[in-house]
Amino acid sequence: MTDLRKEIELHYAASPAPRMGMGDNPALLIVDFVEGFTNTNSPLAGSWDKEVTYTAKLLEVAREKELPIVFTTVEFDESDLKTNLLYLKTPGIKTLIKGSDFTRIDHRLVPDKGNLIISKKYGSAFFGTPLAAQLHVLNIDTIFISGCVTSGCVRASAVDAAQSGFRPMVVRETVGDRSELANLTNLIDIEQRYGDVISFTQACQYIRSLK
Amino acid sequence: MTDLRKEIELHYAASPAPRMGMGDNPALLIVDFVEGFTNTNSPLAGSWDKEVTYTAKLLEVAREKELPIVFTTVEFDESDLKTNLLYLKTPGIKTLIKGSDFTRIDHRLVPDKGNLIISKKYGSAFFGTPLAAQLHVLNIDTIFISGCVTSGCVRASAVDAAQSGFRPMVVRETVGDRSELANLTNLIDIEQRYGDVISFTQACQYIRSLK
Amino acid sequence: MTDLRKEIELHYAASPAPRMGMGDNPALLIVDFVEGFTNTNSPLAGSWDKEVTYTAKLLEVAREKELPIVFTTVEFDESDLKTNLLYLKTPGIKTLIKGSDFTRIDHRLVPDKGNLIISKKYGSAFFGTPLAAQLHVLNIDTIFISGCVTSGCVRASAVDAAQSGFRPMVVRETVGDRSELANLTNLIDIEQRYGDVISFTQACQYIRSLK
Amino acid sequence: MTDLRKEIELHYAASPAPRMGMGDNPALLIVDFVEGFTNTNSPLAGSWDKEVTYTAKLLEVAREKELPIVFTTVEFDESDLKTNLLYLKTPGIKTLIKGSDFTRIDHRLVPDKGNLIISKKYGSAFFGTPLAAQLHVLNIDTIFISGCVTSGCVRASAVDAAQSGFRPMVVRETVGDRSELANLTNLIDIEQRYGDVISFTQACQYIRSLK
Repeated sequence: MTDLRKEIELHYAASPAPRMGMGDNPALLIVDFVEGFTNTNSPLAGSWDKEVTYTAKLLEVAREKELPIVFTTVEFDESDLKTNLLYLKTPGIKTLIKGSDFTRIDHRLVPDKGNLIISKKYGSAFFGTPLAAQLHVLNIDTIFISGCVTSGCVRASAVDAAQSGFRPMVVRETVGDRSELANLTNLIDIEQRYGDVISFTQACQYIRSLK
Repeated sequence: MTDLRKEIELHYAASPAPRMGMGDNPALLIVDFVEGFTNTNSPLAGSWDKEVTYTAKLLEVAREKELPIVFTTVEFDESDLKTNLLYLKTPGIKTLIKGSDFTRIDHRLVPDKGNLIISKKYGSAFFGTPLAAQLHVLNIDTIFISGCVTSGCVRASAVDAAQSGFRPMVVRETVGDRSELANLTNLIDIEQRYGDVISFTQACQYIRSLK
Repeated sequence: MTDLRKEIELHYAASPAPRMGMGDNPALLIVDFVEGFTNTNSPLAGSWDKEVTYTAKLLEVAREKELPIVFTTVEFDESDLKTNLLYLKTPGIKTLIKGSDFTRIDHRLVPDKGNLIISKKYGSAFFGTPLAAQLHVLNIDTIFISGCVTSGCVRASAVDAAQSGFRPMVVRETVGDRSELANLTNLIDIEQRYGDVISFTQACQYIRSLK
Repeated sequence: MTDLRKEIELHYAASPAPRMGMGDNPALLIVDFVEGFTNTNSPLAGSWDKEVTYTAKLLEVAREKELPIVFTTVEFDESDLKTNLLYLKTPGIKTLIKGSDFTRIDHRLVPDKGNLIISKKYGSAFFGTPLAAQLHVLNIDTIFISGCVTSGCVRASAVDAAQSGFRPMVVRETVGDRSELANLTNLIDIEQRYGDVISFTQACQYIRSLK
């Protein structure tokens, strides 16, 4: 993978896009870090310990500055699955039945009472949800994005964030994918077109600098 | 009210709109008949016994023909209320807290396992929900609409149904409002612009005639 | 109509809703004041001279304070009409063919180069358009609404504004309908549920008070 | 690139997703093949001759069977650019000014009068447009996708198609990107999560087999 990584980065580095830059009123969006994806007992489990640990730290920093925080979970009824084409591609999501423990936010990332919980059924945190309207009322202009997986719900959410008028700032250490290749190529595409990929350190510095 | 009603009807009758007509694949949408609006113990309770009774009969007819059935409920977290401008106009909706019995579908209208339950936070059943996408996958072209209240969530849902490409058929005996005036004028507006207002008998005949 | 008006107002006055109140960053939205609706040569023409005159004055005040200004127009291709259920109810809209003079903004309300022009095909200015995203980027929290007709595109736009997180302020002298009854009952519904109905004087005072 | 391609394909081949399969009522969606991207005089021009040629053939086959056909174009006013975060990443899109020849569909792909022309301002053909509603009225369940670029508007449109309930069938020979790497990795992601990547031959055979 190391050689492949280098070759890919060189391949892309030829035409970097301008940075989008951060606004003044950020929120933190944590995409799909639910037990169904993070708990080793789940058939959908991936290996997200590093990403969850970084997200927990970022959450702490965000809470110090009272940033609005959004968690997404994925929940289906039987009838939802019958009306959802994504199920045809990823049949394993039937594990995420409403009421199941697998739909709960990862135990290392406990939502506060005031946090927004978005129950979604598709890739993007914005599709079929009131998230854009809710963040608009809160006057948010920038969204730090953490979660899984980069090529799926993270990217789909970043694309919709940018289209909806929120600057997507994907925090590199807090997002992951089932392959490093999928992670890398999708981060490059996001950086090219939809938002900025920033480091955990940059995100923390920026949040701490907010008045 | 009788004279007012007559005067209003005459006033409007001058320029009737064409009928939209029904399609081939209807669904039944029951808007907000939840305990919070129908149970006399709720601070938001209205008087919907007649409308719920008619809806229960329509539901039975719809189930005989295996029509897709959608129930909406209204549910809020504390954070949802802070991000919702409608709350400023209707503070009573804070009664509809997620998990409360008031958010349950009226006990006379029991959802089956296969029915769609749309949890909404605004007026229209389509706003911030996946309803249009779900009904599209089911190939629905026509929506019978029942529920409360006509000037609020029923009309908002009918408008979005028509815009989204579903023929709204509002079933007169199954919808109501806190005043007969609001009910009447909104039904007239719907009939003028967005869909057809039909009788319970017409709805049943049509459903029974489906192959 | 005077007696009917009085009776309606009494009927509704029993339960007034709280005021929503204005925010800090308003925009002005002028709904469908296009030649197809305002020019007496058009088959769809109504009588909007008073409303257009008040809108022209409001536009002037808004421009003094450099408020973002949005005009909507309605434009159809042949293929748009075939895919639009509203056409079944209002066949006259076929007059609004893309490129026709009837789709131009009324000559008394000339858009500036920096104004947003929303080309829409449905009732709400938000449906199938990027308006919510565009106003979000401009940090708008309040929308003054003018235009025609109150029971159609004005109300549908006010409902979507409120749902999307923008405070709808309908300016009474600048909106109208084909009947005073439709105008009145819809303004009452908007005031009850979705926003505030304010006077032209209130709107101007507020705008002039902005820093 | 050949070795990189092979390595990438091996890397992904480990866990193929199920095929989504085609429905019964397809449409053809041609994304952004406008002069601004295809004409060598444009500052945004790419090299799409092969993809446009295949698209022209597919268009011919689709027309034989009277499939609904959708073209997207990208058009901006000055005010649109100020309200569009994507402009910060891709400043070159300012070339696509409304009324400019660069916003016209490529001369080798002439739209018929009955075709849908979607004027869009973002990545996805569905964002801020009425496309989902229009295709719903036409009873479409499957969308063949052609156009540019795979990592941008093609993928964003495929994701929204799947979320909205339309089976995305990306026709491999008709889509391209500024690098073969971006093309390949995005096709793999689409195939993994959102739809099927099919060959030009498969698409033609299927369309010709329609009754």
